[in-house]
Amino acid sequence: MTLPGLLPELEVVRKDFPILERTVHDGLALVYLDSANTSQKPQIVIDTMVDHLERHNANVARAMHALGAESTEAFESARDVVAEFIGAPERDEVIFTKNASEALNLVANTLAWARGPLEIGEGDVVVTTEMEHHSNIVPWQLLTERKGATLRWFGLTDDGLLDTSNIDELITERTRVVTLTWVSNMLGTINPVAEIARRAHSVGALVVLDASQAAPQLPIDLAAMAPEERPDFLVFTGHKTVGPTGIGVLWGRREVLEQLPPFLGGGEMIETVRMERSTYAGIPHKFEAGTPPIVEAVGLGAALTYLGHLGMDAIHAHEQAITAYALEGLQAVKGLKVLGPLDAAQRGGAISFELEGVHPHDIAQVVDSRGVAIRAGHHCAKPAHARFGVQSSSRMSSYLYTTPAEIDALVEALEYTRSYFKLDG
Amino acid sequence: MTLPGLLPELEVVRKDFPILERTVHDGLALVYLDSANTSQKPQIVIDTMVDHLERHNANVARAMHALGAESTEAFESARDVVAEFIGAPERDEVIFTKNASEALNLVANTLAWARGPLEIGEGDVVVTTEMEHHSNIVPWQLLTERKGATLRWFGLTDDGLLDTSNIDELITERTRVVTLTWVSNMLGTINPVAEIARRAHSVGALVVLDASQAAPQLPIDLAAMAPEERPDFLVFTGHKTVGPTGIGVLWGRREVLEQLPPFLGGGEMIETVRMERSTYAGIPHKFEAGTPPIVEAVGLGAALTYLGHLGMDAIHAHEQAITAYALEGLQAVKGLKVLGPLDAAQRGGAISFELEGVHPHDIAQVVDSRGVAIRAGHHCAKPAHARFGVQSSSRMSSYLYTTPAEIDALVEALEYTRSYFKLDG
Repeated sequence: MTLPGLLPELEVVRKDFPILERTVHDGLALVYLDSANTSQKPQIVIDTMVDHLERHNANVARAMHALGAESTEAFESARDVVAEFIGAPERDEVIFTKNASEALNLVANTLAWARGPLEIGEGDVVVTTEMEHHSNIVPWQLLTERKGATLRWFGLTDDGLLDTSNIDELITERTRVVTLTWVSNMLGTINPVAEIARRAHSVGALVVLDASQAAPQLPIDLAAMAPEERPDFLVFTGHKTVGPTGIGVLWGRREVLEQLPPFLGGGEMIETVRMERSTYAGIPHKFEAGTPPIVEAVGLGAALTYLGHLGMDAIHAHEQAITAYALEGLQAVKGLKVLGPLDAAQRGGAISFELEGVHPHDIAQVVDSRGVAIRAGHHCAKPAHARFGVQSSSRMSSYLYTTPAEIDALVEALEYTRSYFKLDG
Repeated sequence: MTLPGLLPELEVVRKDFPILERTVHDGLALVYLDSANTSQKPQIVIDTMVDHLERHNANVARAMHALGAESTEAFESARDVVAEFIGAPERDEVIFTKNASEALNLVANTLAWARGPLEIGEGDVVVTTEMEHHSNIVPWQLLTERKGATLRWFGLTDDGLLDTSNIDELITERTRVVTLTWVSNMLGTINPVAEIARRAHSVGALVVLDASQAAPQLPIDLAAMAPEERPDFLVFTGHKTVGPTGIGVLWGRREVLEQLPPFLGGGEMIETVRMERSTYAGIPHKFEAGTPPIVEAVGLGAALTYLGHLGMDAIHAHEQAITAYALEGLQAVKGLKVLGPLDAAQRGGAISFELEGVHPHDIAQVVDSRGVAIRAGHHCAKPAHARFGVQSSSRMSSYLYTTPAEIDALVEALEYTRSYFKLDG
């Protein structure tokens, strides 16, 4: 079947992803609905990494020979691709990290060590939200504990939206940082980041945007944003944007990055080192200690180029179409309750749900026995689960390669789960 | 030609490394003598990574489906391989980091945040050496500056050895950490780590061993070391042990790791998260926030398995044979001076040198024009260069795939460099 909004030539696109031809459990076709956990990789990403390893591998920046020049060129070109993908005002504002968590910790830790205007002290406030991934909660708990500052947070409405009704009481002159996710990995909610950034900037706070779930599915153009609505930092990860593990991205505004102290100490982040004292390189190298994730950056460059060729608008439309179809199909399952917004236009492609009478882990296991891969657990968002009075949930998450037939397979597997557990009706 | 000690079937081994068939500069055979900067990758490492990406890719620990189980199994098996490679007393003491620098910073930063017995305070001393890579200097400068502690260091003798004559004055009751490299990346020196560890432990200090250059070429067996000579932490990196970039290893003694606070906050490193407060997982996960370098760990596992098949004793013998041959060949070049020990048995396979009358960068460029890849610069070891009164040097570094003929090619290229710059004689 087809739906309005699906990627054109979806079956051709799927052939770009070798793993989608896998079978599991002795011959069942794989139905991969766990892309918010990690996305699959197109052949061009794998081939680009292989070509780098087989033909161009060398360390970067440090080497003056032919291979070193080739490797450095490939690595720095990937930085250009990332900058273009997010519309970064400057390519040197793009810092490679190991994952999104490290990018968020980089911001929190360097703020903890900052002296001068960016220093965070007793009585200062960091604001986050109750729907964050743990990686956007724990670093700020550690920062505020260490500095005697206070962590506050936006609550959630019953339908899974951010409750911004108290925004003016929450974000005040004492607020130094407002950090939030663009798209929730559990509820799917797309947050009103422009409104929150405006308020945060009006009180002089920095805005950190976790785009780990947004970057795979929404077009991002930092340069096109109004300055008061543009975050000061934006974070995403390679492995959720059809790239490899081992690489994440921190984009930061030059003026802020330059004021921050270094994060990790080591090679390439220095200007000079004497035993007594060191001075540091400019951005981006100041924040890239040691040998960077070279083949991973090269793979990420290929991944974002691939997404660009498909078109982020087209990918977003595809996600919206699949999400609407999934919301409809899931809610037709008796006893199934979706957590988060029920309108596809308000959300991304991760849909968490409960099925009355069955533990989420049991659901995941039974649907897996039918070849359908979903996630069960707290999805690294325990507070958001606690808000809705549950310990855990099941979650399906789609991506650009997801077909309506795969959603049908999940719905069928959930009906099977109900019969397996002998639920009535 | 052949030399006693070379790897048997060296030409067969070389065929495992596809890049060694590369030509550069329009048809010149590649002579890669920059392995201390990064090593080349055998086909089995590349193929194992490709197989993972094409057939088993999924996030780890979090997924209950078939692919998730396969990926988790592959990732955790790699941890077992690493543990075996270094003879770790326990596999859970092996922590995956993004590189060796991050591993060293992990130790320094968690010590900076530690409270209780491990807390480092004013008047406490951290001891390092003048021959460290910047990644084992800068993190300790940052730690001691932030904590009001003092950084001290072993100096070097004129022949490039660690000057341990003042060990008892340097390592005292105020010393909390002694951190040093096993094998120098610039001078090649193999350090007397057992002696230093004994002294450090006798005063209750922790011992951190940077094995970035040692792990590729020396057999390591932590479990076999006498407890007083065993480091408390050992660090190395994947990309120098024929594995990929994006992954490093921190091994730490369980008792110490358990006393340290977390490093980065995020997914997988927690036990529970409430908005008010979090508790943390046990090792190794406490120190592995976020999605780990999955395909990189899998690649590292294949790499260390490959090294194990060749045998670390055989690889060490090969390095010794090539190093002795190179020391002899290099010193026959008029005006060439080797920095560091002249006895192959006292050193690893990185040989830094000066050539009178030619800038190291010019040397690297001219030998590169003959297809020979060496490094020029400070090799991330500015203090060691300053000790010998130079800003920079040229460095050749061999590995298990290096042939005597490649050393001959370097020597010939250096003679050509002399003639190119019209040096007399």
